[in-house]
Amino acid sequence: MLYIVGLGPGSKALMTQEAIDVIKNTHTIVGYVTYIHLVEDMLKGKKLVVTGMRGEIERSKKAIEIAQTGEDVAIISSGDAGIYGMAGLVLELAAKEDVHIDVKVVPGVTASIGAAAALGAPLMNDFCHISLSDLMTPWDVIKERVDAAAKADFVICLYNPRSKGRPNNLREALDIMLKYKDENTVVGIGKDVARKREIIKTTTIKDLDETEINMTSIVIVGNKNTYVADGHMITPRGYTL
Amino acid sequence: MLYIVGLGPGSKALMTQEAIDVIKNTHTIVGYVTYIHLVEDMLKGKKLVVTGMRGEIERSKKAIEIAQTGEDVAIISSGDAGIYGMAGLVLELAAKEDVHIDVKVVPGVTASIGAAAALGAPLMNDFCHISLSDLMTPWDVIKERVDAAAKADFVICLYNPRSKGRPNNLREALDIMLKYKDENTVVGIGKDVARKREIIKTTTIKDLDETEINMTSIVIVGNKNTYVADGHMITPRGYTL
Repeated sequence: MLYIVGLGPGSKALMTQEAIDVIKNTHTIVGYVTYIHLVEDMLKGKKLVVTGMRGEIERSKKAIEIAQTGEDVAIISSGDAGIYGMAGLVLELAAKEDVHIDVKVVPGVTASIGAAAALGAPLMNDFCHISLSDLMTPWDVIKERVDAAAKADFVICLYNPRSKGRPNNLREALDIMLKYKDENTVVGIGKDVARKREIIKTTTIKDLDETEINMTSIVIVGNKNTYVADGHMITPRGYTL
Repeated sequence: MLYIVGLGPGSKALMTQEAIDVIKNTHTIVGYVTYIHLVEDMLKGKKLVVTGMRGEIERSKKAIEIAQTGEDVAIISSGDAGIYGMAGLVLELAAKEDVHIDVKVVPGVTASIGAAAALGAPLMNDFCHISLSDLMTPWDVIKERVDAAAKADFVICLYNPRSKGRPNNLREALDIMLKYKDENTVVGIGKDVARKREIIKTTTIKDLDETEINMTSIVIVGNKNTYVADGHMITPRGYTL
């Protein structure tokens, strides 16, 4: 069996019981070096296949090769493996190479949900996930999605909001949102959620300081009803209270 | 402390370690009768405050009242408590009544993520969550969101897709999507995910049989690149393979 396991945002507390059990019970673990560190204490005595950043295709191929020998193997991903994670890539490669192996995706708490819980309850009404990384999706397509989501008043979760290679994508996305959203719309930021250096804060589209945002950050832009009370970011569900 | 705990889709395997620990260590548990049943074996000897369907406001008020006495209390929700769950309502009520209590939202695996993992990897590119329940959001707003999401080629997760009271919302939503999406677009269905009667299947917009869909179902409509291979629903991330 090839298990594709989402580790959650970063702490063992936010891993699912199934993810913990699969890692405990599987001898061979494949992962990116940073994710391996997240679960280091669970990996003693195991066979590790570790690759560096952008080694996703190599990792997936290795996991598939191991599974083809009949050995159990778990490939790990932060957050949920099916959200901008490893699950799709492994299944795509298996399909392309016409390899038939047993695959089980073990779901996890994705970054937006971890950040949302730490912020309060910003995702209580309809929302979108958009990755601002244009490495694999054309920037025009991403901009069109930001426009559509803002126009229809979705809460918008931005993954990969800003990196050294694309310092301006976030501000450009926020500027598109300002066509429809007020500049005082609440924005929640979760950085290194559930890790030692966790930072949780709320600001507004107008006041957001992009230089604080990096690849370990999730940015959640509220809808027109989102507000902050007692330190919590809240998007109303619509109850009459 | 008032803990607001997401139980995940329905099995203990998909609960987070933190959710399990909070329920184990908190004496008073507030919940809807169905959710109480999901974690029944963990509740022996505890004080339970149980209410029926549509008792959400009553439940939230009771949990807040108990927390105000200084006692720890956990209010439970299926999936993630912050996605169409109890977290927003509790925080809204506390804000409205100007009650200051310590609140901790414990995140969980939401229904779409549980269904997606069982289906394969349909959420590997940008996606939306839309609830088709028009009890608290006007149907015109929901239709506008469906239109915007389909036009910008999001993968679309439909929560509360169909009930006896609104048997036609799902077909109406799919018809709106057909303005932009092909009738052969892959649709994944997860029903009672991670529970005894789990049903997982893929179909297309054209062939979807609405009568199979109820309130325990999640419907995931793919984007234009979503395909099915070896029984898995896959939305490509965009790698060149």
